[in-house]
Amino acid sequence: MNSNEKNKSFKSFILITVIQVLSAYYLYRFFFIPPDMPALDTEQWWGPYPMDLDHDKSIRPLTIEFSDVMINDLRERLLHRRPLQPPLENVGFTYGFNPRYLNQVMEYWHNKYNFKEREQFLNQYDHFVTNIQGLDIHFMHIKPKNIAGLEVVPLIMLHGWPGSFREFYDVIPYLMAEQPEQKIAFEIIVPSLPGFGYSQASVRPGLGPAEMAVIINNLMKRIGHDKYYIQGGDLGHTVGSIIATAFPENVLGFHTNFPVLLSHRAALLYITCGSLIPSLIETKELQPRLYPLSEHWSRLIEESGYMHIQATKPETVGVGLSDSPAGLAAYILEKFSTWTNPGNKKAGDGNLLKKFSLNQLLDNLMIYWATNTVTTSMRVYAESFNEKQNFLIFDRIPTNVPTWGIKFKYELMYQPDTALSFKYKKYLQSTVVEDGGHFAAMEYPELMAKDIIQAVIKFQKFWKFEKQESNETPPLHETARTVYEFTVKSINGRDVKLSDYKGNVLLIVNVASQCGLTTTNYQQLNELHEKYHQKGLRILAFPCNQFNGQEPGTSKDILNFTKDRGVKFDLFEKVDVNGDNAHPLWKFLKKAQSGTIGDFIKWNFSKFVVDRNGVPVERYAPHVNPLDLEKDLAKYW
Amino acid sequence: MNSNEKNKSFKSFILITVIQVLSAYYLYRFFFIPPDMPALDTEQWWGPYPMDLDHDKSIRPLTIEFSDVMINDLRERLLHRRPLQPPLENVGFTYGFNPRYLNQVMEYWHNKYNFKEREQFLNQYDHFVTNIQGLDIHFMHIKPKNIAGLEVVPLIMLHGWPGSFREFYDVIPYLMAEQPEQKIAFEIIVPSLPGFGYSQASVRPGLGPAEMAVIINNLMKRIGHDKYYIQGGDLGHTVGSIIATAFPENVLGFHTNFPVLLSHRAALLYITCGSLIPSLIETKELQPRLYPLSEHWSRLIEESGYMHIQATKPETVGVGLSDSPAGLAAYILEKFSTWTNPGNKKAGDGNLLKKFSLNQLLDNLMIYWATNTVTTSMRVYAESFNEKQNFLIFDRIPTNVPTWGIKFKYELMYQPDTALSFKYKKYLQSTVVEDGGHFAAMEYPELMAKDIIQAVIKFQKFWKFEKQESNETPPLHETARTVYEFTVKSINGRDVKLSDYKGNVLLIVNVASQCGLTTTNYQQLNELHEKYHQKGLRILAFPCNQFNGQEPGTSKDILNFTKDRGVKFDLFEKVDVNGDNAHPLWKFLKKAQSGTIGDFIKWNFSKFVVDRNGVPVERYAPHVNPLDLEKDLAKYW
Repeated sequence: MNSNEKNKSFKSFILITVIQVLSAYYLYRFFFIPPDMPALDTEQWWGPYPMDLDHDKSIRPLTIEFSDVMINDLRERLLHRRPLQPPLENVGFTYGFNPRYLNQVMEYWHNKYNFKEREQFLNQYDHFVTNIQGLDIHFMHIKPKNIAGLEVVPLIMLHGWPGSFREFYDVIPYLMAEQPEQKIAFEIIVPSLPGFGYSQASVRPGLGPAEMAVIINNLMKRIGHDKYYIQGGDLGHTVGSIIATAFPENVLGFHTNFPVLLSHRAALLYITCGSLIPSLIETKELQPRLYPLSEHWSRLIEESGYMHIQATKPETVGVGLSDSPAGLAAYILEKFSTWTNPGNKKAGDGNLLKKFSLNQLLDNLMIYWATNTVTTSMRVYAESFNEKQNFLIFDRIPTNVPTWGIKFKYELMYQPDTALSFKYKKYLQSTVVEDGGHFAAMEYPELMAKDIIQAVIKFQKFWKFEKQESNETPPLHETARTVYEFTVKSINGRDVKLSDYKGNVLLIVNVASQCGLTTTNYQQLNELHEKYHQKGLRILAFPCNQFNGQEPGTSKDILNFTKDRGVKFDLFEKVDVNGDNAHPLWKFLKKAQSGTIGDFIKWNFSKFVVDRNGVPVERYAPHVNPLDLEKDLAKYW
Repeated sequence: MNSNEKNKSFKSFILITVIQVLSAYYLYRFFFIPPDMPALDTEQWWGPYPMDLDHDKSIRPLTIEFSDVMINDLRERLLHRRPLQPPLENVGFTYGFNPRYLNQVMEYWHNKYNFKEREQFLNQYDHFVTNIQGLDIHFMHIKPKNIAGLEVVPLIMLHGWPGSFREFYDVIPYLMAEQPEQKIAFEIIVPSLPGFGYSQASVRPGLGPAEMAVIINNLMKRIGHDKYYIQGGDLGHTVGSIIATAFPENVLGFHTNFPVLLSHRAALLYITCGSLIPSLIETKELQPRLYPLSEHWSRLIEESGYMHIQATKPETVGVGLSDSPAGLAAYILEKFSTWTNPGNKKAGDGNLLKKFSLNQLLDNLMIYWATNTVTTSMRVYAESFNEKQNFLIFDRIPTNVPTWGIKFKYELMYQPDTALSFKYKKYLQSTVVEDGGHFAAMEYPELMAKDIIQAVIKFQKFWKFEKQESNETPPLHETARTVYEFTVKSINGRDVKLSDYKGNVLLIVNVASQCGLTTTNYQQLNELHEKYHQKGLRILAFPCNQFNGQEPGTSKDILNFTKDRGVKFDLFEKVDVNGDNAHPLWKFLKKAQSGTIGDFIKWNFSKFVVDRNGVPVERYAPHVNPLDLEKDLAKYW
């Protein structure tokens, strides 16, 4: 190889290295660096313009009403519903809601469902509305009766689609029962999400899950809760998760029965890679809930047609459901069959009454029918998958709100705790249930209630522990303002307070004896020292063995080495500059002057300039020679 | 390297080569080898059991009837339709059918659509039903009045979803107009596909597009047409394409206004690769119809929600559409807006009346409403994407039926002719139209009619040409039964009739002078010749330069070379053994004895054994040495 060729091959080597480092960096960013938190306007107006700044902010009582006009109209429609074509032979629910069984449900709705009694049932809890950001938002508010000696636990419970506040009617009594041994009393708030049931829908595009999160957080503040707990599944999970991410200061704990990350790239990569060796990421018992991925994906594809059409054409599909009670019932009740257990598809009646009563199911339907809100409820899918896709971005931003998941066996998706903790940094626990599906609050109310209570106890413990922790002094490198607050050890083992350097310009550098850069750097650092010592420059050299082990020796070895080179500037004891054990001074330097592609120290001879006030003001990479700093340093003399 | 290491590295080399060859072979298979034709039962029974073998096979007239009972019920529903929630501000059709505009359509349907007049309009053509495989199949039959001196052209026109036989009402008059200069007269058949409109739906699962193709082909035979032309778009394209693939003997030509391959792997690979250098596969003007792929994919995703839900839950989504005329109108008419031009979404009325009249659109709706068949029509999606996915398999099987596409600018998908010809081996032409969308027959009836006429003329020419071709003697290698029918040239240029070898056992081999196998082979061929000449063995060696150019010389060079080696067996002139120019004898040999992974000759010294009757009976690969054949040859002495 002649020198020209050598030069060429060296250049290619450098080029390839640069490309590899860059691509590694971008892959890392793509998978592991959370996106910026999307800006949320906490006062965005969703009602008609002009915006009414002085609008009524009172909380007004509401009574659920099934008017006679509505009931008669509904009964007419049920009576005169069009005969359906017979189903294909022996298909059960595999082509959707079996029309033969639908006739039986319609009969019940028409003849047996007692509208007035059910109205009363729904009114057993107190209902209210209050105007938030231009929209009347409905909620139930259930207050504890006896709170003497108990801690009141404000809990908001968030329904999903195609659910409603009705989802929680069977859980609430278990939660509100006195729990003297736990010393807590629940105060429960159950809203209708905007566009659902008795909550108004936005008049203009843009109200997706993130914007719902803003409204719900504002609602809780209106009610008087600055700190509260959240429970949610399905869309309620999504909204709750966004509140815990965007407003962590308001959330004491997040309990989810849909513990799933829909768009966390690293978590999805992790789960995908896990399919190669499942035992690495999930226990043997739980692996079948996740693997083979293909099987679970095909269930998801089979069950997501509604989402696809609602995300793209909610107005189109909504018309028939608004106009026809049979259409609405088939569309919504199918989910209560198939999402509760995929095996239900084989049954001619979808096993619908195995876990639910028709009254339960029709109550939920009535909330959609009476308010004529099926179309407005479906718009949230279009607002989720629009260009902003805010809700997917929030999924990728970590939160420190303590989180607890309950995993029912037939839920539409399953993810291991290790994946969930990619986002939920304080993922405390999962409860694994060997039955149950997507509508857990209605299917297993007692079990759900018990789990929520356990979670709240754990959340409270978590905060007690955090409080203890936070009473301790935070680490110095987090709070320090100048390098003068740090103490280091000289190469001879003496404590040196950096405040001794007050008034000097400092050049702080990590050194090593066996690096390709060693000769030039020591030579030029000496030269700088000679030239500018008079003007107040002090060079502080910290040996470090973290880069390819190029500073392996003891303090004595290092001293001998530097003596040979006639070093006159100040030398200190060997330290770590990266990692958890990095010296606090170096943690501080890196925080104050972060690097181009991450704040970690890249190699030996990284250089920090500290001004005469002790503030780190410049950082130079290892390849910048000490003498190249002369020009920049000039401004500090 | 010691010999052990050499051996190892040679083994690895062989292993890697084998793996590469195998993977290349499997990739080739995956992309380029068509699957086997799925078996289709041409008598499958779709009606209720017991199967009625003697069922009425007559063709019975049908009159389209809008009964007063039906009209009154429909009007009631329209009048009492439930008020729709107002749309979001300024969204046009971007969230689906705009409910404000839907009200106007409903007003028209209720007050202005003249049911009796439209009934008459629909009855302007003769309607019939006949029972095919247990189902009453409806069709219109329009016969030419004056056929003196004209060739009658039987043409079946196949509608799509959510279309019907109404799609063709505006095209038919243009086709039926006398075309004296073309000397043809159309006889048009327009069926309702099974489950659509006046054709009965199957009572059991399994009637997908391939099974529809069987029924339609049987219908044409019932009507008396063994040979006919097909026109189709959307589902009509899919069914037509399958008929042209499974029953090419019945199809004279296929005209499609949806020229698209949904699952042809090689074609899709080709289109995907084409996105790197679009100019390689499509003209500059047409590239924007295809690229960037991402843009076209996102339109497809936006427009395929209906397909997703119909493929998975047709019964569920069908209920509201069966029960509510408003629901049906929104669901179906939205497609006539958005699939005609994606720009229509921005308009508050979806530009619906820009290309269509409400009478046209409501006629089509009435066919679904009056027959209550929207649910049964949607089932074909579930039958398409079931486990068999027959319709996708047929997409990958080539057909020689002459095919002609017309490409409207805003059709949902676009593919270049070069991609289409992966399947349509006789893809004759594309007509490119600078406007128009998915419902072309209704949007541009005159243009469509003219294009169909042009296509039929071209199809007729194609067949005339084919007939001439087929009147010529088919190539000898296709018809020959023994090698004795061939004549070859000796290395000296003399004609040698192989019939001269009658009664001998022949070993026919392609040779080369500069191959690694040359020495061994010539040596051992000589040995075989010496040993078995007496018993009747004749060795026929054909020099060939197609393998790495290892037989570059002239006949003289080859003669010199073989003289040096004392060759006494028979040598012939240099030939090609692979490719179009291969010598007919070799084409015959390869056809008679095809190889393990394709019938092409793999290398020099492939060996064919021909028995004493002139029939090729064995084939050996190049690496089999001539002496290894001794044992096998023994049975022929």
